[in-house]
Amino acid sequence: MTLKLYHAEPAANSLKALLYFTERGLEFESVYVDLHKFEQHEPWFVAINPEGQVPVLDHDGEIITQSSVIGEYLEDTFPEAPPLRPADPLGKARMRYWNKFIDEHVMNYVSMWGWHRMVGVIARSIESGEFERLVERIPLHEQREKWRTARSGFSQSDLDNATRKINVAVDKVEAQLAGTTWIAGEVYTLADINFFSMCGMSLERMFPEIGNPDRCPRLLDWVARMHQREGVKAALAMPDHTNPALRTFTGEAR
Amino acid sequence: MTLKLYHAEPAANSLKALLYFTERGLEFESVYVDLHKFEQHEPWFVAINPEGQVPVLDHDGEIITQSSVIGEYLEDTFPEAPPLRPADPLGKARMRYWNKFIDEHVMNYVSMWGWHRMVGVIARSIESGEFERLVERIPLHEQREKWRTARSGFSQSDLDNATRKINVAVDKVEAQLAGTTWIAGEVYTLADINFFSMCGMSLERMFPEIGNPDRCPRLLDWVARMHQREGVKAALAMPDHTNPALRTFTGEAR
Repeated sequence: MTLKLYHAEPAANSLKALLYFTERGLEFESVYVDLHKFEQHEPWFVAINPEGQVPVLDHDGEIITQSSVIGEYLEDTFPEAPPLRPADPLGKARMRYWNKFIDEHVMNYVSMWGWHRMVGVIARSIESGEFERLVERIPLHEQREKWRTARSGFSQSDLDNATRKINVAVDKVEAQLAGTTWIAGEVYTLADINFFSMCGMSLERMFPEIGNPDRCPRLLDWVARMHQREGVKAALAMPDHTNPALRTFTGEAR
Repeated sequence: MTLKLYHAEPAANSLKALLYFTERGLEFESVYVDLHKFEQHEPWFVAINPEGQVPVLDHDGEIITQSSVIGEYLEDTFPEAPPLRPADPLGKARMRYWNKFIDEHVMNYVSMWGWHRMVGVIARSIESGEFERLVERIPLHEQREKWRTARSGFSQSDLDNATRKINVAVDKVEAQLAGTTWIAGEVYTLADINFFSMCGMSLERMFPEIGNPDRCPRLLDWVARMHQREGVKAALAMPDHTNPALRTFTGEAR
């Protein structure tokens, strides 16, 4: 039996998928996909995931995409490993409510700021004929548009809306942590992994005006508790090939 | 033990939740929430769901929101009733991939056209002071914006983008049904209920230029098979209080 994970740097969706393994002690084969070389749009990769996105799980030849779907799949497939999903139906529902919220109302908005600050620099560094050639082979319309917008610049109103969404999310998590130890209740779950990977790990660095102890002390305490976990340490220790000057998620750049 | 479902007309998210019960033969108490009277924003309802949206499940006092979350919750809670979720992990992953796709890339776009054609008529019929008073008490920013936009009119570029998304979804389902009987595989699942409620049931009426036998014969065959199911018939037979002239989902209006 082989579990093969195609992933990029330990941040965002790739970190989320890596944590499923490091937190549960599941062995896997790591296949690094170099987003800086646009490998996720190469024919060999699109043959594996027609959407041209990481992470992708290959379990004995069966391909599973979408990081939230991969998390539940690994829970269903390996129930004997330490679980990241509550045992009771209500706990599962609370976790799924949060995962849905993070997937739909957090991920794309933090991502927009990351693209604005990092991918825009990359996109503008490419000569325009080459840029269009690279964009044309991206399978998903939304991703093609995102690359073009990263090059031309996101509108201020879109960036403002993204900031508003991040403020709403931070308030919501801060309020939740007033009542529970972890995001979906008293048990550490896939929802903690999701929010940490998509927002929590980068909040203080990317959005210091939001991610500061006056504004969200409980959330920052939770971030500190996340960093103390051995599984989190192991995933974050995986190689990061991003140019350090461009590390909006994992490094210094803003 | 009581299962109480707060819902509106048998269409979209409310139909989706009603089908979980009618398809599985689960008994429940139906609580009709009149969206035409904005009951979902009344204090008594916001006390139940702070987001001010239907459907809501009350299971012995525990509140579960979000129709996709409710579906999995009922699977976890009543495994002895006829299941709408595959037994094997891979089948569950396929179903969740589709549910995520429908939740994120279909629902809001069909909804925009429904709002453009129906809710816009309602919103413009309200005197402006009264309109602002009604909008101010809507809990979610996105819903307040949607009401205001429905009144002022959605932009042509947003409507064009919604049409493009619906075309992508129809192509994707049509391609899937070339290989499998139901949307997520050989088993009827929550994904069929999701796509039917959000798009399939209204496709021919709302988008005849897309939902026609030349364009998507397999999808229309699947719609016909959905309509033959006793559980679907039972849910669609529930009362519809919409002004018939405004029934974009369930009636004639376009």
